[in-house]
Amino acid sequence: MSRIEELQHLIHEAIEAGNYSAEPAELYAPIAYTMQLGGKRLRPTLTLLACDMFGGDLEDALHPALAIEIFHNFTLLHDDIMDRSPLRRNQPTVWKKWDSNIAILSGDTMLIMAYQYLMKTRCDCLVEILNLFNTTAAEVCQGQQYDMNFETQAEVSVGEYINMIRLKTAVLLASSLKTGAIVAGAGDENAEKLYHFGENIGIAFQLMDDYLDAFGDQEIFGKQTGNDILTNKRTYLYLKALEVADEQTRKEFFKAFAINKPDEKVAEVMRIFRKLKVDELSRDAIVYYNREAYEILDAVNIEQSRKSDLIAFAEMLTRRQN
Amino acid sequence: MSRIEELQHLIHEAIEAGNYSAEPAELYAPIAYTMQLGGKRLRPTLTLLACDMFGGDLEDALHPALAIEIFHNFTLLHDDIMDRSPLRRNQPTVWKKWDSNIAILSGDTMLIMAYQYLMKTRCDCLVEILNLFNTTAAEVCQGQQYDMNFETQAEVSVGEYINMIRLKTAVLLASSLKTGAIVAGAGDENAEKLYHFGENIGIAFQLMDDYLDAFGDQEIFGKQTGNDILTNKRTYLYLKALEVADEQTRKEFFKAFAINKPDEKVAEVMRIFRKLKVDELSRDAIVYYNREAYEILDAVNIEQSRKSDLIAFAEMLTRRQN
Repeated sequence: MSRIEELQHLIHEAIEAGNYSAEPAELYAPIAYTMQLGGKRLRPTLTLLACDMFGGDLEDALHPALAIEIFHNFTLLHDDIMDRSPLRRNQPTVWKKWDSNIAILSGDTMLIMAYQYLMKTRCDCLVEILNLFNTTAAEVCQGQQYDMNFETQAEVSVGEYINMIRLKTAVLLASSLKTGAIVAGAGDENAEKLYHFGENIGIAFQLMDDYLDAFGDQEIFGKQTGNDILTNKRTYLYLKALEVADEQTRKEFFKAFAINKPDEKVAEVMRIFRKLKVDELSRDAIVYYNREAYEILDAVNIEQSRKSDLIAFAEMLTRRQN
Repeated sequence: MSRIEELQHLIHEAIEAGNYSAEPAELYAPIAYTMQLGGKRLRPTLTLLACDMFGGDLEDALHPALAIEIFHNFTLLHDDIMDRSPLRRNQPTVWKKWDSNIAILSGDTMLIMAYQYLMKTRCDCLVEILNLFNTTAAEVCQGQQYDMNFETQAEVSVGEYINMIRLKTAVLLASSLKTGAIVAGAGDENAEKLYHFGENIGIAFQLMDDYLDAFGDQEIFGKQTGNDILTNKRTYLYLKALEVADEQTRKEFFKAFAINKPDEKVAEVMRIFRKLKVDELSRDAIVYYNREAYEILDAVNIEQSRKSDLIAFAEMLTRRQN
């Protein structure tokens, strides 16, 4: 078993062992259901990896790591109500399986539960971790609000989009790492660097997501590509295309999105994406954020060899084909 | 200005001075709106009263007091979505003025904001106050879930109802007091007693609410009585009536609730309430919880004269006519 697998195993065991049940059952059954739906548990893995990298005690990192995972699942639960998403990990979402009221209230309870887990953090680093968590949690909500705003906002710039994914996705990955670093006593400078590493990796990760939805190899990607195009989602590709297009191509672009036949629509949008070299521009951006990330990680003041597990894990995230 | 008014003034000023605005405006405008809707600010007043009673520094109590007020307003915001309530304090509710998604997300942000205020608590009592807050916040959610369950649950006992109002309403009043006591260094035993005083007062307060909705003097009560009857709400009166009624009266009772004409319905239900002496039984229960409360307060180890402001405030709450 690789070190990464060992850490993931620790997390899975801790989540399995967690008791998410209490009375009333109507409130807690959706929480147990959500926590047991699975998922890649990226965030707690990052916390343990960061702790491990600085030679910290994994036991100390486990509770805040679980808190972050519970918080993440709370955001998914509430996001699913807001997006009216019927499925999550191929299972019915909580609001769909129960109802919206139960989904609101069990989400609220999960957020409180995350704080209950945080309180089990070693006392000498509790305040710093709580403050980081609070800031991050508020930012994640801000990111979700920007994401909702963008659905109706007349114009969205690429810069606004990057800021939105930074808030909605990247800061929690960043905080997961910083939390592990704090627990391990890595020092302010190292902890801060790990945060910015995570922030850049997080942006690259989300940009890759956008890229693969259009340009991914369907065989490797494992799901139908073109979904974002069909749902008119304002992804990095979409916004970058508008940014670089001349007036004529902009018109073509909007016309393409108005096509009714799904296959034709995807094909036409993809033709314009390629014509505008949005695929290359997108890969450039991913390379840029990745490079930023690794430059910061390079500067973390610790033997290079101790960084290898985190590098391997981050590469898996951002160079993934699915 | 009385001492109570002084404390309330402090709270009003602190809430006014609070900055609830940030970007994106769509997320924070509903928070500022909610915080400025007003209300009696009972909970933070209780925190300051408890702190004052034990000679604590009010400055120390102010941040946790505001955290509790923000938390309380968060629960109202989310409850209003769940109950589809269009009005709160005669103003449109957030989900009605904006939409449900914004109400969910700005509520989530308020809950996080409550924790941000809590972090400003003096460090030697931070952990105890955070743990108390977490437990209480989870209980308030449980209470709300029981309340929702009761709408469809076949039979609800009086005991279950009391437990529901304890969780939904009383524990937060209890915690408000205990938080002030902790900050003032009142000692575990006194703090715990203040908690149980608040718990009993909270139950009496809610029972009074139920009582006044049916038996209140409309002139003094200031609003139409009989509203709970018209909405078939399972109040203490309703459940107590079912508990003491014989089979024949139970039938009459359900028939009364099926009457279509509002005035007739209220009159007939009230007739049965009076026949069953539910008004007296209800007053007995209020007296019982009040007596419990004051017995506990009596045992708080501090000069009796220091308790007078809290007693005056609690009496205002539970003997109020509106």
